[in-house]
Amino acid sequence: MSLIGITMGCPVGIGPEIILRYYDSLDLNKSDPPIVIGDIAVLSHTAKHLGIKSDCVLWHPGNSFPVGKIPVYSVSQLDPEKHTWGIPDKETGLAMASYIETGVKLIHDGKIDGLTTCPIAKISLHQAGYNYPGHTEMLAALTCTKRFAMMMAGEKLRVTLATIHCSFSEVTELLTHQTISELIHITHHSLIHDFGICDPRIAVAGLNPHGGEGGIFGKEEIEIIAPAIAEAQNDGINAVGPFPPDTIFHQAANGKFDTVVCMYHDQGLIPFKLLHFSDGVNITLGLPIVRTSVDHGTAYDIAGKGQADQSSLSAAVTLSLKIVRNRKKKCPFPF
Amino acid sequence: MSLIGITMGCPVGIGPEIILRYYDSLDLNKSDPPIVIGDIAVLSHTAKHLGIKSDCVLWHPGNSFPVGKIPVYSVSQLDPEKHTWGIPDKETGLAMASYIETGVKLIHDGKIDGLTTCPIAKISLHQAGYNYPGHTEMLAALTCTKRFAMMMAGEKLRVTLATIHCSFSEVTELLTHQTISELIHITHHSLIHDFGICDPRIAVAGLNPHGGEGGIFGKEEIEIIAPAIAEAQNDGINAVGPFPPDTIFHQAANGKFDTVVCMYHDQGLIPFKLLHFSDGVNITLGLPIVRTSVDHGTAYDIAGKGQADQSSLSAAVTLSLKIVRNRKKKCPFPF
Repeated sequence: MSLIGITMGCPVGIGPEIILRYYDSLDLNKSDPPIVIGDIAVLSHTAKHLGIKSDCVLWHPGNSFPVGKIPVYSVSQLDPEKHTWGIPDKETGLAMASYIETGVKLIHDGKIDGLTTCPIAKISLHQAGYNYPGHTEMLAALTCTKRFAMMMAGEKLRVTLATIHCSFSEVTELLTHQTISELIHITHHSLIHDFGICDPRIAVAGLNPHGGEGGIFGKEEIEIIAPAIAEAQNDGINAVGPFPPDTIFHQAANGKFDTVVCMYHDQGLIPFKLLHFSDGVNITLGLPIVRTSVDHGTAYDIAGKGQADQSSLSAAVTLSLKIVRNRKKKCPFPF
Repeated sequence: MSLIGITMGCPVGIGPEIILRYYDSLDLNKSDPPIVIGDIAVLSHTAKHLGIKSDCVLWHPGNSFPVGKIPVYSVSQLDPEKHTWGIPDKETGLAMASYIETGVKLIHDGKIDGLTTCPIAKISLHQAGYNYPGHTEMLAALTCTKRFAMMMAGEKLRVTLATIHCSFSEVTELLTHQTISELIHITHHSLIHDFGICDPRIAVAGLNPHGGEGGIFGKEEIEIIAPAIAEAQNDGINAVGPFPPDTIFHQAANGKFDTVVCMYHDQGLIPFKLLHFSDGVNITLGLPIVRTSVDHGTAYDIAGKGQADQSSLSAAVTLSLKIVRNRKKKCPFPF
C-alpha cells in the first residue's frame, strides 16, 4: 500500500474546499484514502460553511485508518472565525508553511510515500517570513535539491518548462544551452522513472515563430536549442527538434511524443490549459520525494463561495500514487 | 450569386493538389464553384500525376459556368515537365505573382467578389523580383492599404496578432500602444462587417506569464496593453483584458469571446493550431477586398506526393463567401 499526504495549502484559499470535495467524491468505505496535512478546525468550519458532507478525524503518523472518515494530521491550531476567506495573514502563512515542512518530514520518516500539495500564495509565504519565490523552491530547499523542473501533465499532453516565472523580455537571456540540456535530461529521467516509459519520445519546441525559419526570425534555435538537443541525443536520449512551436503540440497531443520541452511559461501553459483546464497536474521533477500539485492557485476571489472544482486535486493524487508505484519498481533501463 | 477566385499559389507547391482535391470534394453538378486563377496545364498535369479525377476547362471573365467542370482562368503558360515539385524558380515565381495580381484586378473590375489564396513562398516571390515580405503585404500594396492585420479563424477560436513574423526577442520593442489599439479597432470592425457580429466581444491577452501578475513579471500589461484597451473601450468597443495568456483561450474557445487579440505569433497560433490544425483559415483584415487564405505553407517537402489535405482551402473558400455576403448586407450598427 502507498500513502499520499495532501497538504492543505493556504487556509483562506480554496484548498480546504477542494480537499472536502475530493473526499466527498471518493467511496471512503472502499478505498484507503490519502491523509490530509492541515487543520481540522478549518476543514470542519469549511464543510459546515459550504454544506459539504464530511467527517474529519484526527490522524497521527503510524495510526490505522478510520473507515469512512477523512484522516487529518492537524498541525496548526487556527481559529477559523478569526480569519477571512481570501485574506491571508502571518498566522495563516505560518500554518501553511508548516503543512509543507511536515509533509516532507513525514516522507523522510517513512510515514507517507508522496505529497500532493494544495495551492499557497507567495505573498502569504513572505508574510510568514519565508523568502522562497514559491512552493517548488521551498520543497527544493527542504530536500537539498539543486536541479529541478516543472512539468504539467494531463491525459493528452505533458509539458516541461525551461523558463517559468519571469517576464517575456527576460526569457531570451535566461535560455542557455545548460538550462535546456538539463531540462531535457531531467524530463527524460522522470518519464522513465516516474511515468514508467522505457524509451521516452521527447519533442523540443523552438523559441521563435516557425522555429526561426532558418535564422530569419531569430537564431536561438541554431545557436542554443539545437546544440542542447544534439548533446542529449549523444547521451542516448530520444529528443528531437527544435520544432515550430505552433505545430508541435498538436502532434504531441495526438500521441507522437511523450512530452514537449518548452522554452517559456506560456508556450507550454497555453496549449496545456486549453486541453487540461480543470484536470491538469503540476509535478516537480528532480526532487528526491514525490510531489504533485494542483495546477491552479489559491483563487482568493472565489474562496469560501462554494465554486471550487476538485478535478485537478483528484488527478494530482492519482498521479502521485502512480509515480510512487513506478519509483518502487525497478526500471528495466536505468538512467 | 457571389463568385470567389482561388489563386493557385506556387505552381510547384501543394496549391495545385489541394485545389484539385477541393473540387473533387464538391458536387460540381449542383453548386456554382469558385474559379481558379492559375495555370490549366499545371492543374491537368497534377491531376494526371496524382490520379485525381478532374475536368479543367478554360474560363474567361464574364463567361458562364460549364456544369460539372473546374473553371480555370489560365494566366500563365508553364510547361509542367520543365519544373520540379518543391523547387521554385523565377518562372514559377512570376506566374505565382501574376495569379495574385490578376485576382485583385478581377475584383477591381467586378468580375469576382473575393479571393482565397493558395500558399506562396517568400523565396519564390523574391526570385521573381517582388520584394514583399509576404502575400499579405503584396495584397496590401496592390490595394493601397496601410493598416491591415492577420486573423486566424476557425469554428471554435479566432485570433488576431499584434506582431507576426519577427523573432521572439523583437516582440517587446514592436508592441506599442498604437499597434495594439489599431489591432483592436481593425478586429472590432471586421467582426461586425465580415462576420456579422453586431456587438463583438473581444478579449485581449497579456504578454507576460499570469498577465504580469501586477507588474512582478513584466510591466507591458500596465504600461501598454491596458491603456490601449481603455482607449478602445472609450470608443465604444467591447474589449476586455489584459488576460493571463494561459487561461483566456479556453474561455474564448468555450464561447465567452468572439476573438482573442494576441501579442505575438505563437501566443495566438499555438492554441489556434491545437484546435484547428487542418481547418483553420487565415484572413487579412483591413483590406478593401475580401481575402482569405489557407493557413499552411507551400509544403515543398510533400509537394507532388499526394499527401496534401484540402480542408483548410475548403474552409477558406466557405469563409470568403460568408464575408462577401456579410459585406453586402447593410450592418445595423455601422462602425
